[in-house]
Amino acid sequence: MVSEYKKAGVDLNKLKEYHALASNTFQNSGVLKIGHYANAIKLGDKYLAMHVDGVGTKTILALKTGIIEPTGIDCIAMNVNDLVCVGARPIAGVDYLALEKPMDDVVEKVMRGLKQGADEANIEIIGGETAIMPGVITGYDLSCSIFGLSDKLKTGEDVAPGDIVLGLKSNGVHSNGYSLIRKIIDEGKLSLKDWGEDLMRPTRIYSSSVIPILDKIKALAHITGGAFSKLKRITNYRINLKMPDPPQVFKAIENAGVPHFEMYKVFNMGIGMIIFVSKDLKDDIIEFLSKKETVYELGYVEKGEGIKITTYKNEILYI
Amino acid sequence: MVSEYKKAGVDLNKLKEYHALASNTFQNSGVLKIGHYANAIKLGDKYLAMHVDGVGTKTILALKTGIIEPTGIDCIAMNVNDLVCVGARPIAGVDYLALEKPMDDVVEKVMRGLKQGADEANIEIIGGETAIMPGVITGYDLSCSIFGLSDKLKTGEDVAPGDIVLGLKSNGVHSNGYSLIRKIIDEGKLSLKDWGEDLMRPTRIYSSSVIPILDKIKALAHITGGAFSKLKRITNYRINLKMPDPPQVFKAIENAGVPHFEMYKVFNMGIGMIIFVSKDLKDDIIEFLSKKETVYELGYVEKGEGIKITTYKNEILYI
Repeated sequence: MVSEYKKAGVDLNKLKEYHALASNTFQNSGVLKIGHYANAIKLGDKYLAMHVDGVGTKTILALKTGIIEPTGIDCIAMNVNDLVCVGARPIAGVDYLALEKPMDDVVEKVMRGLKQGADEANIEIIGGETAIMPGVITGYDLSCSIFGLSDKLKTGEDVAPGDIVLGLKSNGVHSNGYSLIRKIIDEGKLSLKDWGEDLMRPTRIYSSSVIPILDKIKALAHITGGAFSKLKRITNYRINLKMPDPPQVFKAIENAGVPHFEMYKVFNMGIGMIIFVSKDLKDDIIEFLSKKETVYELGYVEKGEGIKITTYKNEILYI
Repeated sequence: MVSEYKKAGVDLNKLKEYHALASNTFQNSGVLKIGHYANAIKLGDKYLAMHVDGVGTKTILALKTGIIEPTGIDCIAMNVNDLVCVGARPIAGVDYLALEKPMDDVVEKVMRGLKQGADEANIEIIGGETAIMPGVITGYDLSCSIFGLSDKLKTGEDVAPGDIVLGLKSNGVHSNGYSLIRKIIDEGKLSLKDWGEDLMRPTRIYSSSVIPILDKIKALAHITGGAFSKLKRITNYRINLKMPDPPQVFKAIENAGVPHFEMYKVFNMGIGMIIFVSKDLKDDIIEFLSKKETVYELGYVEKGEGIKITTYKNEILYI
């Protein structure tokens, strides 16, 4: 069965294949392939982790709705959220803004969004490139590359049966799945007028919330492209999750014709960050995180394999 | 007078304006704004400099000619050459490849080019993002972000009257001015059949040649977008240059209708890297660099202001 996402032009298996190709091509002795989210190299007595990510085709909706600034925040969020997942504290980065043509308004708003995101994530943007590329870019493309430092990298190897899985509430769709969303908007199945504001809400920046207790957390997973299927990168043990009722925007997307199970492979379904903690630290961590985040206790790790998701419709999905 | 480059859709003044906007938006106390090529932050007792750059619309010609791999090398070169200009030794980086659709052949060749460039520059590619972005990207866009370390940053402040200006031979057009080149190809004024191979030659990687003597060099300038006008970033003293006869490809571009003086503001004209050295070290440095590079003694720094270029046609251009 061809997924709706693939019909929209995004083939997740193809991307996986490309990532594997890149990984095989660049294998070098000095690089710590943590295998998910960001890699790192040893620098003195610390690890320097580096990540690059863009905001995808969300920029098309940004131009359509005129809501541009959030994409700047998205770009920072996509990177800093991934960096904390490997146990790194984000320090500084650069942005890459590629434009179809001079667009003063877009540039100004993107920069303002990047600055707001950088302030929120407590990082510095130390450089960037703004390129005008007629013939390659339609509208604009935005990506950032950010590095972080770590004393001890998180690889997921600490995760064990009995651990508790927490979820931090998302802001909405964040920054993934927009090719699919655009397809159903273009098909007239989702109203941009009704859902534009929801769809353009920026990715929540979780890094500042988790950094103070990073040492107490066993593993983290930023729910982006591939959504919950990426939890496999954390551990081979069975992860058992009961997902909460998602925000309305996800139901609207699903009602537009995306199969129920595919929703959990493409979208965050209301959970932007997954956190693995030991049972004895659970209460303290929930209490701390609840000061700034909405925290769900989603489930636990147990013996066995694969991810078992009980969806909001109480259907069971195995990934 | 509207320049040919602007007619091709690239307004250099507009880009300058955007860079200034970015610089003003992101000003932060911890960042060392070296003001050219790359910025840096203090990290322990060292400086970490970070740079981001892409290969621009050269990708369009790559797809047209089928000569893809060099764009991977370009992407590394554009970054490591800029990093050494601030006195940093390039260490590692990430790539960002945005595709219109799955293109196995392109991805494989780009990765191979990136790997070749990384090996030549002695850096590690520790991560990357391959994104499929229908509706935003036509063909492919490639950028890299690389960081380097430095004990002492080069700001150009050491440059003084009496210093000698050397030039390292370029490989051809390198990675700038391709929107203009494409315009004259589309207008039928330059034959892609005759010049395709020349136009697709990758940017020369100079970093490995200069790193062993980086301490002895006062300042460096990577000749990319804006070409020789960027030398103003190095020093306010008068720079007096006599340019050599450029490779044929530049003459072909000029003959296609680009004004003689504009050539020196858009293209490297056969010189990919400019190096400022003190008179007493000149001979040693030329001898060392000549092992791997073709070195020109182009001129000198003197009292006064601005850049004075004697072109290959013996015309005088003041920038």
